Amino acid sequence: MGAPPGYRPSAWVHLLHQLPRADFQLRPVPSGFAPREQEYQQALLLLAALAGLGLGLSLIVIAVYLIRFCCCRAPELPGSKSPSPGGGCVTWSCIAALLVGCAGIGIGFYGNSETSDGVSQLSSALLHANHTLSAIDHLVLETVERLGEAVRTELTTLEEVLEQRTELVAAARGARRQAEAVAQQLQGLAFWQGVPLSPLQVAEDVSFVEEYRWLAYVLLLLLELLVCLFTLLGLAKQSKWLVIVMTVMSLLVLILSWGSMGLEAAAAVALSDFCSNPDTYILNLTQEETGLSSDILNYYFLCNQAVSNPFQQRLTVSQRALASIHSQLQGLEREAAPQFPSAQKPLLSLEETLNVTEGNFHQLVALLHCRGLHKDYGAALRGLCEDALEGLLFLLLFSLLSAGALATALCSLPRAWALFPPRNPSALCNGSRLSEPLLPARLEPVSPPRSFPGCQRRPH
Amino acid sequence: MGAPPGYRPSAWVHLLHQLPRADFQLRPVPSGFAPREQEYQQALLLLAALAGLGLGLSLIVIAVYLIRFCCCRAPELPGSKSPSPGGGCVTWSCIAALLVGCAGIGIGFYGNSETSDGVSQLSSALLHANHTLSAIDHLVLETVERLGEAVRTELTTLEEVLEQRTELVAAARGARRQAEAVAQQLQGLAFWQGVPLSPLQVAEDVSFVEEYRWLAYVLLLLLELLVCLFTLLGLAKQSKWLVIVMTVMSLLVLILSWGSMGLEAAAAVALSDFCSNPDTYILNLTQEETGLSSDILNYYFLCNQAVSNPFQQRLTVSQRALASIHSQLQGLEREAAPQFPSAQKPLLSLEETLNVTEGNFHQLVALLHCRGLHKDYGAALRGLCEDALEGLLFLLLFSLLSAGALATALCSLPRAWALFPPRNPSALCNGSRLSEPLLPARLEPVSPPRSFPGCQRRPH
Repeated sequence: MGAPPGYRPSAWVHLLHQLPRADFQLRPVPSGFAPREQEYQQALLLLAALAGLGLGLSLIVIAVYLIRFCCCRAPELPGSKSPSPGGGCVTWSCIAALLVGCAGIGIGFYGNSETSDGVSQLSSALLHANHTLSAIDHLVLETVERLGEAVRTELTTLEEVLEQRTELVAAARGARRQAEAVAQQLQGLAFWQGVPLSPLQVAEDVSFVEEYRWLAYVLLLLLELLVCLFTLLGLAKQSKWLVIVMTVMSLLVLILSWGSMGLEAAAAVALSDFCSNPDTYILNLTQEETGLSSDILNYYFLCNQAVSNPFQQRLTVSQRALASIHSQLQGLEREAAPQFPSAQKPLLSLEETLNVTEGNFHQLVALLHCRGLHKDYGAALRGLCEDALEGLLFLLLFSLLSAGALATALCSLPRAWALFPPRNPSALCNGSRLSEPLLPARLEPVSPPRSFPGCQRRPH
Repeated sequence: MGAPPGYRPSAWVHLLHQLPRADFQLRPVPSGFAPREQEYQQALLLLAALAGLGLGLSLIVIAVYLIRFCCCRAPELPGSKSPSPGGGCVTWSCIAALLVGCAGIGIGFYGNSETSDGVSQLSSALLHANHTLSAIDHLVLETVERLGEAVRTELTTLEEVLEQRTELVAAARGARRQAEAVAQQLQGLAFWQGVPLSPLQVAEDVSFVEEYRWLAYVLLLLLELLVCLFTLLGLAKQSKWLVIVMTVMSLLVLILSWGSMGLEAAAAVALSDFCSNPDTYILNLTQEETGLSSDILNYYFLCNQAVSNPFQQRLTVSQRALASIHSQLQGLEREAAPQFPSAQKPLLSLEETLNVTEGNFHQLVALLHCRGLHKDYGAALRGLCEDALEGLLFLLLFSLLSAGALATALCSLPRAWALFPPRNPSALCNGSRLSEPLLPARLEPVSPPRSFPGCQRRPH
């Protein structure tokens, strides 16, 4: 009858967790999550550095390709009818690359929103846990105050009224002792009081960081979208300056894409290490930060049949004391009320206080039970390890697609640009020049049939 | 100290809820959610029918445009050098429309996954509620059985052992009465026992329907993606048959898009009506289906300070009876154990049973508290009214974009197709013909300068 089935590591977590990792000396590093150990930090940095390597390689490939294209160009015979070979293929491959880039942007938007969903699930779970913890503190404080007030006023009045009959005074004193015992037991239940760690603060910090992460990604995605669209526009309008500017921008976005890919890969791997066995790490961290006993933390973080409620003893003792107060008050009402009419009022008021205290006690039992807080813990883990990790993997896919697409576009754009015709002031379409992508043959009905050797290799 | 802030209707809910609605006689219909009333059903059907009207209008516009294009074509002079005017604009507008369609598809994928997320949140909340309700039943059953067993065996043995001393037998009889009273009180707490409504069944039904809805949308999105990509391919390769097939497919997808738009609009409006004030409807429906008292349902669905715990009385009585059993057993242990050593064993066993019963009682108090079930209710509402509604609105946007894009493509495709050059077997690019979108001028260095009147109006 513990909590319902909670968080289970997904297949992605297992897969990423099994990737080999190494430190700067290329010695293997164990894949347990240990963000404070230097070896583990080095392994993550090395992973991020792989993206830098990828960027360097792709820049070298682009540079070699373009240099070869510029220097090894076959000399064109003036007046020759043979078209610049590969022209169609170059432009279409550029368009295809930009389309792939756009698909990647769509995936990136999805991944960004998924990550943001996961993190907001984490922070809402933290807020909910904070609400439960402060509700416990508040309820304990209120109940203890109410009991103390009853002891100070009604029970004192009662003892004064009944002072002629010592056995009734003894019963009232017994009720006072029990009430003080209940107050003392209850005070021990406010376990989060004075703990330096506030889930509210953690939730706010997480939301703050996430807000900026989300915004940075949206800006990157919009930048890439604009680059793709303006490049397409530049190709359509055959505007050299637009294509040149967009080539430079593509280079910038390529660098940003590789950079974000490195960050995402390191974050995904670290998250998978954390998510493959979160309980141990979280238990240790919380114990360090809060100084709470491991009984209490185990109860809330594990919440299964094997872990007994650390407050069971206190709850049972309080419950028995409350019942005993009730029977003592009932005895007093039977014995004293007929003889001392002025005892009626404080007795009724005491019974009212007792009823409220019993109601608060049941609320406290419900709040202290591990179900609620463990459910928040499960929701936080699911947000982080399912939604946020999935979002990170989609962002990784976006970075990969966009790096590939931009590298292809960077190879093709200068070639496409070199093939643009010279400016022709008469070629205006409502004030703007638009190339005609598909209609070359109809336009020159008298020109000789054209051949499109297209992708054939050029002789050197 | 009730539940933390729960579900609040979003701005979208308010906006959609305020739209005017009318029945078939165009009389205004109140916007409260009443799916069983004929007027309300008619209002939703009318809303869905608006999409049919939109489809009809867009088909008429396309037909008029194409007929005008076919019949009012200006006769071309053979050998004239003027290019077919508007050709570039036609193809580029077709490409732009298809790009808008692709963006719409991305939005559709996002909306579909968001809706699916919302519905799966709803069904996981239902599963969690089912777990809580069956845990209550199970715990009550187990505790009652354990108490009955203790009464039948240990207390009977105890009475037999102590039969020489009547006051001790009377104490044991008192404990038996109290235990029977506790068992009876506890049985009244299993409030969901015998209720014909199973949240598990509802969750399974919801997941079943959602699975097919999700699949249908994925198929529609993939179909539209394929149509867009193959149309682009057809334009690039200037393949007449591909463009004709894709024109027909576009028409089919246009009809599907308008159909889905009607369904989405009706669903979004109905959902907004439900979400603007879900408590009343859900309370009435649950009361009808389960026959539970409104006290209990109000407690769980509202869960605020104003509604008192309907089980408070039973819980307090049980708690007092348990404490009284405890004090009677302690009295017996003091009095009887020294005189009757054979009473030791049943007394210890009874105390063990009492401890377990008190532990179970605390669990029961926690499970019965409205916090847990109300949190599930809030999660279900948030899933349905935030994520699922947001997803539906994205799907609506997808349908709008794709209807617009496909209508534009349907206007442009036949014109682009009519402008394709006749097949030329020599124009091969590695076995496939590729048009050259941007390089007309370089290819014909000797042809006279071409003008691109493009978007200029053709004379009739």
